[in-house]
Amino acid sequence: MNFRQPTCLAQRGLGLRISQRQARPDFFATTICRRAFSSSTPRTAEAGPHKRGPTSRVSAVRHSVRPRSQIAALLAGLGLLSFTLFVSPTAPTTFDAHYASSPPVSSPSPKSESAPSPENPSDSRDPDLPRFRIAEVRKHGADSDNPWVIHGDKVYDITDWISAHPGGQVILRAAGGSIDPYWNIFTIHKNQYVYDILSQYLIGYVDQADLINGKPAQDQIEDPFENDPERHPLLITRTAKPRNAETPGEALSAQFLTPNDLFYVRNHMWVPTIDDAQSNEHRLTVELFDGTMKEYTLQDLKTKFPRHKVTAALQCSGNRRKHMSDDSGKQTNGLPWTSGAISNASWEGVLLSDVLADAGFDVSEARSGSSETQHVQFTGLEAYGASIPIKKAIDPQGDVLLAYRMNDKPLPRDHGFPLRAIVPGHVAARSVKWLNHITLSDEESTSQWQRKDYKCFGPNQTKVDWDTAPAIQELPVQSAITTLKLGNWIDPKAEPHVLKNDQESGARSQSSPEQEITMTGYAFSGGGRSIIRVDVSVDGGCSWTQAHLLPDCVSKNGMPSPCQGHGAWSWKRWRFEGSVPLHTFKNRPSSGPEDTVAAAANHRSQDNGQKRCTTVLVKATDDAYNTQPESHAATWNFRGNLATAWHRVQVCTDCSGSVPSGAHTRQK
Amino acid sequence: MNFRQPTCLAQRGLGLRISQRQARPDFFATTICRRAFSSSTPRTAEAGPHKRGPTSRVSAVRHSVRPRSQIAALLAGLGLLSFTLFVSPTAPTTFDAHYASSPPVSSPSPKSESAPSPENPSDSRDPDLPRFRIAEVRKHGADSDNPWVIHGDKVYDITDWISAHPGGQVILRAAGGSIDPYWNIFTIHKNQYVYDILSQYLIGYVDQADLINGKPAQDQIEDPFENDPERHPLLITRTAKPRNAETPGEALSAQFLTPNDLFYVRNHMWVPTIDDAQSNEHRLTVELFDGTMKEYTLQDLKTKFPRHKVTAALQCSGNRRKHMSDDSGKQTNGLPWTSGAISNASWEGVLLSDVLADAGFDVSEARSGSSETQHVQFTGLEAYGASIPIKKAIDPQGDVLLAYRMNDKPLPRDHGFPLRAIVPGHVAARSVKWLNHITLSDEESTSQWQRKDYKCFGPNQTKVDWDTAPAIQELPVQSAITTLKLGNWIDPKAEPHVLKNDQESGARSQSSPEQEITMTGYAFSGGGRSIIRVDVSVDGGCSWTQAHLLPDCVSKNGMPSPCQGHGAWSWKRWRFEGSVPLHTFKNRPSSGPEDTVAAAANHRSQDNGQKRCTTVLVKATDDAYNTQPESHAATWNFRGNLATAWHRVQVCTDCSGSVPSGAHTRQK
Repeated sequence: MNFRQPTCLAQRGLGLRISQRQARPDFFATTICRRAFSSSTPRTAEAGPHKRGPTSRVSAVRHSVRPRSQIAALLAGLGLLSFTLFVSPTAPTTFDAHYASSPPVSSPSPKSESAPSPENPSDSRDPDLPRFRIAEVRKHGADSDNPWVIHGDKVYDITDWISAHPGGQVILRAAGGSIDPYWNIFTIHKNQYVYDILSQYLIGYVDQADLINGKPAQDQIEDPFENDPERHPLLITRTAKPRNAETPGEALSAQFLTPNDLFYVRNHMWVPTIDDAQSNEHRLTVELFDGTMKEYTLQDLKTKFPRHKVTAALQCSGNRRKHMSDDSGKQTNGLPWTSGAISNASWEGVLLSDVLADAGFDVSEARSGSSETQHVQFTGLEAYGASIPIKKAIDPQGDVLLAYRMNDKPLPRDHGFPLRAIVPGHVAARSVKWLNHITLSDEESTSQWQRKDYKCFGPNQTKVDWDTAPAIQELPVQSAITTLKLGNWIDPKAEPHVLKNDQESGARSQSSPEQEITMTGYAFSGGGRSIIRVDVSVDGGCSWTQAHLLPDCVSKNGMPSPCQGHGAWSWKRWRFEGSVPLHTFKNRPSSGPEDTVAAAANHRSQDNGQKRCTTVLVKATDDAYNTQPESHAATWNFRGNLATAWHRVQVCTDCSGSVPSGAHTRQK
Repeated sequence: MNFRQPTCLAQRGLGLRISQRQARPDFFATTICRRAFSSSTPRTAEAGPHKRGPTSRVSAVRHSVRPRSQIAALLAGLGLLSFTLFVSPTAPTTFDAHYASSPPVSSPSPKSESAPSPENPSDSRDPDLPRFRIAEVRKHGADSDNPWVIHGDKVYDITDWISAHPGGQVILRAAGGSIDPYWNIFTIHKNQYVYDILSQYLIGYVDQADLINGKPAQDQIEDPFENDPERHPLLITRTAKPRNAETPGEALSAQFLTPNDLFYVRNHMWVPTIDDAQSNEHRLTVELFDGTMKEYTLQDLKTKFPRHKVTAALQCSGNRRKHMSDDSGKQTNGLPWTSGAISNASWEGVLLSDVLADAGFDVSEARSGSSETQHVQFTGLEAYGASIPIKKAIDPQGDVLLAYRMNDKPLPRDHGFPLRAIVPGHVAARSVKWLNHITLSDEESTSQWQRKDYKCFGPNQTKVDWDTAPAIQELPVQSAITTLKLGNWIDPKAEPHVLKNDQESGARSQSSPEQEITMTGYAFSGGGRSIIRVDVSVDGGCSWTQAHLLPDCVSKNGMPSPCQGHGAWSWKRWRFEGSVPLHTFKNRPSSGPEDTVAAAANHRSQDNGQKRCTTVLVKATDDAYNTQPESHAATWNFRGNLATAWHRVQVCTDCSGSVPSGAHTRQK
């Protein structure tokens, strides 16, 4: 149904975009008005005047509209970074690497070669076009009326392209400098049809004085990540640019609410820069299915709607991906997270459903299932986009927030300052950070992150039909061991040992020496389903015992429960104190798939130096009685998403029965 | 909080119960007013006059109130049948067996022995008490003002006990006859304190003329199941009385909506008898948290509320229990269901939330989470009871029905005629049949089926704390193979074989002979979560292929989709057509845990008579990406509930490569 097309053009065209420009490029709306591209209406009606540039070319472009299929491809490709960047562990995995090692951009067009410039015999480029110093290009930044970008050694005036750019105004992020660092992120741009589009806006060349080996000097090119915030040194960084870092095991266990600066970081791009003092002026646009739009400043949200608090864990779809790769012995595509791509926090903001209702959306109609709106699309300032089903958005018990506070502090920049969607119980990829646009639609977000990255497939599927696979929303049940301590040997002949948690474990052996073991960890399930049981095994899964579930959600010392919201959105922390009988330790296999914890590694071996190991493991069950798969082999998928098999850790000792001194553990 | 106690006594005591008596005993309310037992208010205030009986004893009983703990124990024990009846597969598993083989009830009290009656020298029973012919006892049925029951050879006037009976008026089911058949079902009654209570109502003995070997003749004792309906001969009966029968595999696969007469039957007791002509007069009482009650006839429900249709699968918590026992090699307690304790149907009725709102319940308040009501308790005419969380009951997308039609026909008697709760996505044990009472409460139903039977535990837990374990509500993801056909050998040298569904399966071997295989089955998940993928393996789980999901929920030939309701409440049928490479078949193990399908069993072996087998299996994934556990060993629980491990079937052949004639399959 295209009945909204005229509305879209009339109300949401260039004019609105331009009018939304704010003081800093990061503020620019990135929402995409797909429908605009299928119309022949000139897109430059409200564009600013051109001071330079080949007007005849611009004129031609004004009516040169990309076919929808190409546009769709561009859209689908946006953000391909997270998909392509980590195809192989040996490939460069940071923006740094791309930035430093990528060869000079050799755009195949324009293909015309011209004679050397008479003023500079070494300059063989088209003498008919002007040369610009980079200082001059800088003046044509996002705030100027006619923004320019550099691509390779060429300069383009993109004024007329902005409104037609499938990625929206995010292109302005590059204005006044080189677009190439961004195309190293949005690699979909490295295509002939993109070069063809850009070629139409060529206005000249970078002056020879600013070139080294034919391209702009590195220090002349803006680093999109230069304004990224400082991070806590204990975070375990997986990629630096964009920053992706997991929470260390000790921090996962130590507190129910993960401190803001230790909350795991998952960024697809740079961190938008918003001035603290201006944050209340941050604008959120809500766009209904009929094209109607309503704009709210953050101050509006804070003052016009009831405040709402929700305690919720967020988990990356790739959490424990490394375990999936290691366990199955098969590569996966994506960041090699271990168990730390999950954290738990208290979020404060306003209910999405309240804001939608205020914007004119008929929530009651939608609850009855008769609305045309099927999805709520979120877009962030840095161009990331995702969507959730309307059912979740309007569920009176769904607790979907537009959050501006985290653990009773303003949202940190890494976590979406000043505004973030929080979708409890769903994969964190839907909790869009730096939120500035909400679109109600009959279809999912067209972003790469909705249509491709965060999907899952069968273990045999490597050539996949992205379209027919559903996007990940609610998460399955998960658990992990985050700390483990192997204690002293217990000699049953010396004194009776009272087991604390494993009275019924078949692993218990009262007649042989045992070693104390203490483990902590988390368990979590999506959809608000609570964890009802955590089973632990110290003998590789032959027998089981229940871990103690920490009563984090009860009120203590007169303080209310820290758990707020209608569902079990938080993780459940667990603790196990038990013992491992000596006979459980077997000679170490040559190499195992499990995490390895070496106990008493410094202790002199009493067993001819041979390590003896056992596998401890954990699995959780949620209140729908779903439980984790036994191994990753049968849930392996090439994307490495939703690695939720039993978390196995190999614990080893070089002792054969006596009590070692200085036993310690180390989690790889 | 006991603030409702006075209300309970004043509004819900004996008077109301008595006034609710209807024409047939099955109609009697079975709701329990627990709070009444903690008061010393005489319970006989509104009881009818006594025509016979030792009034002094009755008087004593009037003030003899059972301690709450005993009452609670009785309550908890109600319906222990399904828990105790099937402890061992070798134990009698039908009411028939109990009924026929149970020894004469030897209640240890009253213990007094008296001299033989002078009128009948062989009657050594207390000569001071009268003898009654059974014909006389019959007159004191449920409709009489002073109902009697026989226990052993004694006669009791239970008039004064009815209102205090923890199981409610269901005791009247036995009035006018022997209570012993019912106690063989409600075995909790076989306890000294129950005998002590009953002894206080003793009024005499069964006349010697009606006794054979000291107990009433069998043909004098009512068979509670005598009015049970006829069942379809293709149903696979697990117990006859009460009737429990599963749907055969072919019927599971053949239609999306299971025909009413092939829908699996799970009865805990007899089937209540309601006259068709009077069914519109069937009464449903809705009791709010404050004790307020409102009564509806079925006709009221049909005419005062909007009709609502929901297509939903119901699955017993014990479906596939036999697989769990067999796979793990460990006994479980319960009916040995294979894959047929699940069926799918269209249900029509009214929304529970509409009726609750009409009865005065504040649905909006409850949706905001601020209601004291936390559970909706259902009670059926035969005394079965269960409850669901209020959250599910009032979820606008939860589709909880009070249903009176099934597959466009009146509810069959076996499935709850004339009224049944349908709780889509939850274990079928909550979809209470023959519904006549709904109680809103701050606690779960106190029935055995809520507090004990339908719970699940860790694999090591055999001594359990029932109270801390949550009752099963939403179901986990499940799937099963229901039909399997092993076809002709495929000789790749003869003609190329085009695989239909397993193009990417690692199991494929184009250079060796293969055998065609066709499988069908179902997959289902609770909570409205849809099935997104069904993985099949023909080599024991080494490699996987996707099954085809039947498009049952699309509109066809201009007809609307047969799937109604807000969630994916129906099962998903699947079909797999592929091939099993010859090398996959291995020499048959001595005995395997899997179901066995013998292919070409009549064909003369070409392999020295040795069977060659492989294991085919299925697992499903739902839209929260939960999947089934690999084996039952790690989810085994002594109750045998929620057996959801991969369904493995061993397929065997005695052929080594040539095409057998008359190949056929048989599913055990």
